[in-house]
Amino acid sequence: MAVDLLGGDDAPAVVVDGALRAVRTDPDLHLLLVGPTEVADGLIGALDPEQRTRVTVRPVRTAVGMADHPTAARGESTVRAAVHAVRDGIADALVSAGSTGATVTAAALGLGRWTGVRRPALVATLPAVEGPVVLLDVGGTFEPGPATLARHAVLGAAYAAVAHAVAAPRVGLLSVGVEAGKGDRLRRAADPALAAVPLPCGARYIGLVEGYEVCLGARADVVVTDGFTGNVLLKAIEGAYAMAGGPPTSGGAPRAAALLGVAGTVVVCHGAARPDDVASGIALAAHLWRRGATDTVSTLLEDVPHDSAPDRNDTEVAP
Amino acid sequence: MAVDLLGGDDAPAVVVDGALRAVRTDPDLHLLLVGPTEVADGLIGALDPEQRTRVTVRPVRTAVGMADHPTAARGESTVRAAVHAVRDGIADALVSAGSTGATVTAAALGLGRWTGVRRPALVATLPAVEGPVVLLDVGGTFEPGPATLARHAVLGAAYAAVAHAVAAPRVGLLSVGVEAGKGDRLRRAADPALAAVPLPCGARYIGLVEGYEVCLGARADVVVTDGFTGNVLLKAIEGAYAMAGGPPTSGGAPRAAALLGVAGTVVVCHGAARPDDVASGIALAAHLWRRGATDTVSTLLEDVPHDSAPDRNDTEVAP
Repeated sequence: MAVDLLGGDDAPAVVVDGALRAVRTDPDLHLLLVGPTEVADGLIGALDPEQRTRVTVRPVRTAVGMADHPTAARGESTVRAAVHAVRDGIADALVSAGSTGATVTAAALGLGRWTGVRRPALVATLPAVEGPVVLLDVGGTFEPGPATLARHAVLGAAYAAVAHAVAAPRVGLLSVGVEAGKGDRLRRAADPALAAVPLPCGARYIGLVEGYEVCLGARADVVVTDGFTGNVLLKAIEGAYAMAGGPPTSGGAPRAAALLGVAGTVVVCHGAARPDDVASGIALAAHLWRRGATDTVSTLLEDVPHDSAPDRNDTEVAP
Repeated sequence: MAVDLLGGDDAPAVVVDGALRAVRTDPDLHLLLVGPTEVADGLIGALDPEQRTRVTVRPVRTAVGMADHPTAARGESTVRAAVHAVRDGIADALVSAGSTGATVTAAALGLGRWTGVRRPALVATLPAVEGPVVLLDVGGTFEPGPATLARHAVLGAAYAAVAHAVAAPRVGLLSVGVEAGKGDRLRRAADPALAAVPLPCGARYIGLVEGYEVCLGARADVVVTDGFTGNVLLKAIEGAYAMAGGPPTSGGAPRAAALLGVAGTVVVCHGAARPDDVASGIALAAHLWRRGATDTVSTLLEDVPHDSAPDRNDTEVAP
């Protein structure tokens, strides 16, 4: 697992702490630390001799700041070096708590996109009452069109089945009411598009769902929305759990999300990640890689017909 | 207070229960029940003789269904009759748990809009750590442009000061990060628009805020967003509190919201309202009317210069 030592608001300290926890918890885990040598050396110095053999270093001194434009990731940076390590087969996956936009851009450019996925999606999994709820997109693509939302429905269904073993996932489109026709123009256009698209893994589209569904999961296992709405929603849920005195015992809002649609296993942690969040991001990347989730989901998508020339009203911008 | 007996998923039973609670709790409250005579008679029969003198009836048999198009409110219906009662001075305010779109449409057509407010906003107040957080829009206008969001910032600041006595409200624009430039095209265009608009009541614009802010209120007292995002966010917070075993002691997600931008006091309750929610909606309407909130906010807005010809990129649709 390639770990971006300089990604995140409180990097490198928080990333170092998180990486230490991950190495100590998972005896099969090998890390490639991407960042300044002295930071990596500090981390390695804190490990037992056996654990040290599972850590290597790729020295890089420059990071993409949270306020930088995502295209800053085109220059030499920790996140770009981590992407290259995955591309070159030196690492199996990468984890960064840096700027989401920069990670998405670096991964899309460096690893390439899947056939038939024009826009990558960040996928978060919430522990709901009846099992996991897969929420996408939470920040990969801010302005999808209906065709992209339909493609993300396919992607989310495959991910729920492959990564979380959800049988015959129920897929819903997030809107302001459950009755057909509720919502803004994007939702009104996307509802029939999602209803028409064949879904893999026995999944079925159940129509519009409301905001409760993301936490409760009573009606849907996969909730599809645009990356702007998904991102603010996830953080609002996190705020609500903080206000309520802590998350439910089943777990709170995830602070690590998988990037789907690029040819490699990529996990993005919350910019305000704590060491536990970084460790759980590394664990998620290892889980996905061991399940072969990225390859399996990608293969499932190839079997689903898609419109190679999406509608003209698609208002997406480059990630 | 005119009460729409037929509005809501579980109307009239839930509305009757809620209205009973409101009449019993507030000895100064007078209700105008708008709906079928037999429903109103059932409610009145449950009251003490003194309380009965505070209730009158306007018989109407037709409601706008939750699945109906909002323009169905143009026909004869309970919500339209309630709006006319306010317009004609027979009622001071109206409360409905029916279709939000239908209520917004009926109110905008029947009462007229404020000068300089092209799009009404539904305003919800959440009890955060440091005091109330005013969230708008939660479902009045799904596709605002930057000019409308700037106008809603003015509106939210005035409402926070007038309805909740917040001194010098801090106003934030909901986005996916706090750094300037974060967000989709609407947020990138709205950020400078909000920074440029003069705010009333000593309010100041503090820039972009994230989803946590809506529950925690650490940085902002007023959070501005589009009606689609605000609506799904509010319901997600409600779901999170349900998952966490109940709302915090300071209170949960509100299930009644004030409609601002129309010439009258209008409160919209959640379609899935319970009797308590209807009672709190009636109490909110009474609170706003007693404070003269609608008139005061409207007057404050007239003093703030606005662009009478909003930008061409404004993508709003009629409510």
